[in-house]
Amino acid sequence: MPEFTLHYWPIPFRGHPIRFILAHHGADWDEADAATVAALKDRAPADKPYPFLAPPLLHDRGQGVWLSQMPAIAIYLGRRFGLTREPDQSLRLICDLSDILLEITRYHGALMWDRASWAAFRDQRLALWMQLHERMAAENGVSRDAGFLFGGEAPGTADLCLGAVWHTMIDRLPGLRRLLHSHAPTVEGLADRIADLPRIAMLRAKWQDSKPIYCAGQIEESLMAVLAKER
Amino acid sequence: MPEFTLHYWPIPFRGHPIRFILAHHGADWDEADAATVAALKDRAPADKPYPFLAPPLLHDRGQGVWLSQMPAIAIYLGRRFGLTREPDQSLRLICDLSDILLEITRYHGALMWDRASWAAFRDQRLALWMQLHERMAAENGVSRDAGFLFGGEAPGTADLCLGAVWHTMIDRLPGLRRLLHSHAPTVEGLADRIADLPRIAMLRAKWQDSKPIYCAGQIEESLMAVLAKER
Repeated sequence: MPEFTLHYWPIPFRGHPIRFILAHHGADWDEADAATVAALKDRAPADKPYPFLAPPLLHDRGQGVWLSQMPAIAIYLGRRFGLTREPDQSLRLICDLSDILLEITRYHGALMWDRASWAAFRDQRLALWMQLHERMAAENGVSRDAGFLFGGEAPGTADLCLGAVWHTMIDRLPGLRRLLHSHAPTVEGLADRIADLPRIAMLRAKWQDSKPIYCAGQIEESLMAVLAKER
Repeated sequence: MPEFTLHYWPIPFRGHPIRFILAHHGADWDEADAATVAALKDRAPADKPYPFLAPPLLHDRGQGVWLSQMPAIAIYLGRRFGLTREPDQSLRLICDLSDILLEITRYHGALMWDRASWAAFRDQRLALWMQLHERMAAENGVSRDAGFLFGGEAPGTADLCLGAVWHTMIDRLPGLRRLLHSHAPTVEGLADRIADLPRIAMLRAKWQDSKPIYCAGQIEESLMAVLAKER
């Protein structure tokens, strides 16, 4: 049995920050298939191995730990692997990333995008997130071509999570690279460097042709549709 | 100058978990008024004292730290005050609470409640959150009348945050006490005990007649309207 099992849908989205940390550390993990994840999620609270609401859910067999919530899992693994500098600012950034994923899917598909709502989000809120992360990166030891957050000489938990969200966004939704480049060139550079780390590059290669490509569901179609109109 | 300044709107919502921790510890803090908070939030990224997107924002003058994101602030203060047991499970619970606040406001008012959507949320998702927290509490050292999460002899970060969200919900939206009692009597008991802690009771007394009463905005009106129909 591998040391870790990640229970998440077969999509990048909230899974990739966790996968990037596991992969970069060289952890031994497997992933439950979608049917298993769905069955576990739908069990009654009393019948679950751990009282979580929704994936991602991590099972750490070595430590006998179950844990849900992407930010909690990322912070847990980061500490376990000795990867976290500045835990509070890292957690703040990871909470931001969680919000960004929620917002780009209009709250997990509670609403669909149309041209006007997408343009407003892209130019205001998404641009603002990028500008704010640009300042966080630039003021904390990162330049476009070198350095990691909070003065680290190697990628830390925050770098890996930022890379997982921002690189995955511009990789899977390539129309958005120009926006990130324009508002956050330092973040773009960091995200590209994280994506090119040997073990992350291997992970990404395995995911290269996977579908759904980003967040799945009707909201993925909606996102693709508004982005296609921008070309 | 007080040691801490909390920048948040004059509503309970995402502020109370932070306020409960500050108050219980006996910290010396003040709060920026709504106009100051709004002005700070609306500054350009380069002009902010710290690149945050939205309140809550904490300024810890003693440590020279600025920090945004409710879960990050709660974990930061909890560690600073020596209140956190089981940081990972605590963070998971605090992320849950953040989700619950998001969901009960239909994503900060992105949608409004109507009778059908409210009934579905109340009976499914909200009931499920309650049941899951009930199991977390019951399996981690809490009973209705005694005990705190993760075996503590005194309230910890997770207890204070759970109390702040669940007690505030049933206090400000009293129609929901019956639901919490039915699905999560242990959580109800814990929340009531947290609310009755001397410094928390003093904090609550100051807030007793404050308006908006819960989350503010059109979504507060919408929530009040669907709850009024249930009486």
